[in-house]
Amino acid sequence: APPPCTDFDVAYFHSYAHLGIHEEMIKDRVRTETYRNAIFQHRDRIAGKVVVDVGCGTGILSIFCAQAGARRVYAVDASDIAVQANEVIKANNLSDTIIVLHGRVEDVEIEDKVDVIVSEWMGYMLLYESMLGSVITARDRWLKPGGLILPSYATLYMAPISHPDRYGESIDFWRNVYGIDMSVMMPLAKQCAFEEPSVETISGENVLTWPHVVKHVDCCTITIHELETVSTRFKFKSMMRAPFHGFVFWFDVEFGVPAINSSDSNAPPAFVEAPDNQVTDTSQRKKRANPNEALVLSTAPEEPPTHWQQTLIYFYDPIEVEQDQLIEGSVTLTQSKENPRFMNIHLEYASGGRSFVKESVMR
Amino acid sequence: APPPCTDFDVAYFHSYAHLGIHEEMIKDRVRTETYRNAIFQHRDRIAGKVVVDVGCGTGILSIFCAQAGARRVYAVDASDIAVQANEVIKANNLSDTIIVLHGRVEDVEIEDKVDVIVSEWMGYMLLYESMLGSVITARDRWLKPGGLILPSYATLYMAPISHPDRYGESIDFWRNVYGIDMSVMMPLAKQCAFEEPSVETISGENVLTWPHVVKHVDCCTITIHELETVSTRFKFKSMMRAPFHGFVFWFDVEFGVPAINSSDSNAPPAFVEAPDNQVTDTSQRKKRANPNEALVLSTAPEEPPTHWQQTLIYFYDPIEVEQDQLIEGSVTLTQSKENPRFMNIHLEYASGGRSFVKESVMR
Repeated sequence: APPPCTDFDVAYFHSYAHLGIHEEMIKDRVRTETYRNAIFQHRDRIAGKVVVDVGCGTGILSIFCAQAGARRVYAVDASDIAVQANEVIKANNLSDTIIVLHGRVEDVEIEDKVDVIVSEWMGYMLLYESMLGSVITARDRWLKPGGLILPSYATLYMAPISHPDRYGESIDFWRNVYGIDMSVMMPLAKQCAFEEPSVETISGENVLTWPHVVKHVDCCTITIHELETVSTRFKFKSMMRAPFHGFVFWFDVEFGVPAINSSDSNAPPAFVEAPDNQVTDTSQRKKRANPNEALVLSTAPEEPPTHWQQTLIYFYDPIEVEQDQLIEGSVTLTQSKENPRFMNIHLEYASGGRSFVKESVMR
Repeated sequence: APPPCTDFDVAYFHSYAHLGIHEEMIKDRVRTETYRNAIFQHRDRIAGKVVVDVGCGTGILSIFCAQAGARRVYAVDASDIAVQANEVIKANNLSDTIIVLHGRVEDVEIEDKVDVIVSEWMGYMLLYESMLGSVITARDRWLKPGGLILPSYATLYMAPISHPDRYGESIDFWRNVYGIDMSVMMPLAKQCAFEEPSVETISGENVLTWPHVVKHVDCCTITIHELETVSTRFKFKSMMRAPFHGFVFWFDVEFGVPAINSSDSNAPPAFVEAPDNQVTDTSQRKKRANPNEALVLSTAPEEPPTHWQQTLIYFYDPIEVEQDQLIEGSVTLTQSKENPRFMNIHLEYASGGRSFVKESVMR
């Protein structure tokens, strides 16, 4: 029996009934055009085949698949936006190709086995919203062996950052407020500004080191169990002297098949760590990133901004680091017991002989 | 006995315990500097006197009053931010002058009668949040006859607007989404985008006519009863041919004493309507606006933006109006029965022989 649909799920699906969220996603051209390009790039795997679009929203990806020649697309969404998707599909005379199923992937029925799963499931910090579980469910229920999942891989990265402007405008601000010393506010200001993860766009210049791979996901093999807790140890070496304000998290996803000559399909395709956790040759990184010319949708600080921005976890107090100073620790991401759509972030970090723990919840 | 503190009040006070909201307000230089200038301009009415700051927040206005020579300032706030205000006041050695009272104006006790009330109580669309009631309560409990209230007057305006860019990006957008006709989305798009009032910054160029005064408030005489329902009839004449997309609301407040020679203290001081509801001479308007050189804090579209921005009520469909075409109707603002801090907006309007009704709720 499928897991029950909880009140949290109902609230989650309801949030996608509002059109504004779809407008924002569709207007994210980096997102939508990369998906469109990826679907057309895999036209030979899609034409004449059966596709499932997991969380179809307005139906745009399903329509791209129909345009790429899919014989049949099942467009599944538990949100009431599915009613609108159906209207769009009728108005575009695609009802013979695209079947809208208004329900959870756990609950709807599809007669066919499917050749391709397409889904835009990524949340902030990749795993927020826990929608990847729905893709896994669809895969395990319907995907033929050797079927294609778009995107095929996802990688969550982290890196230490310095962001004195942001720290200054929220914290140091209170030192002099129209000539008044309000610095006694600073502890509360730190808590209010930095207790929770912050979704914002930073620049590549804020990043102090090469990133660390927190989790690499192969959508063909990942299990729901594996996503309940994601944990990694990191070791960074600061590339400069700077106040270290926190960590940035971002992700990329890759649309493609594994390299034919790949000996380790678990290796992160979009960023490969050198043994000392530093990659110094950018051209090498770029080359390794796309061995098959796979399309990559990246939300990295140095790439064009997307609606996902980046997710920042700030410390209450900056740590002054020297060039080459080590930053070590671990991060553990777990689904919140309060609401499985939320994410608990447990961060331990040490540098310059001091160690810290920061707990936060992405709600 | 004071009215009970409801769950809505508790939630309202709690929202002001977060420092981010105070940071935003303090960083609104138009707001904060106008208050500071007004307090210093009324230094002769404040020096050596007793002041109450209603909803003191971080205490910044209380400190300005102390700097202006107040003998005693009672800084009242029901939110937990009052604890922080007290710390700021201690750290600035102002505890002998400023007494922080952590509670509602209905509940706290002040021995003195007060000479001056200062308060920054204005919400979106002036009356949202219903905080003016607290100023009235403080006035009726403590203010000496002839005492000063800063600000002294408040005026809510409305005007018809044209905003094709905004309408286009949320509604017409669906006509062509990456080449796909999603215009069947448009009814839902209209509802999602325009069912509720929208707080945004528009330009003076979006405004189709001179404004209409919805409500003029004299803080010395206004009653709580009078605020329960605010209703007005309007009649505009469009200054141009344009698609008419909705109405904008904004307000200004004036810091000053009534004109000595004023024969009608109920007349709006910051905007005086000519008999035909049109004022064509800007210089005259400016002159009339400040007969006593009173400071005005304006949130009008043609003025520098503030954190209040403007409040827009969009129609689901634009109305094409010709130059000089009449736009008539009425607007009624009432406190929501669901939550008195919310505001119901009932709008009736007619133009070119068609009439419409729009209900919305500011939550």
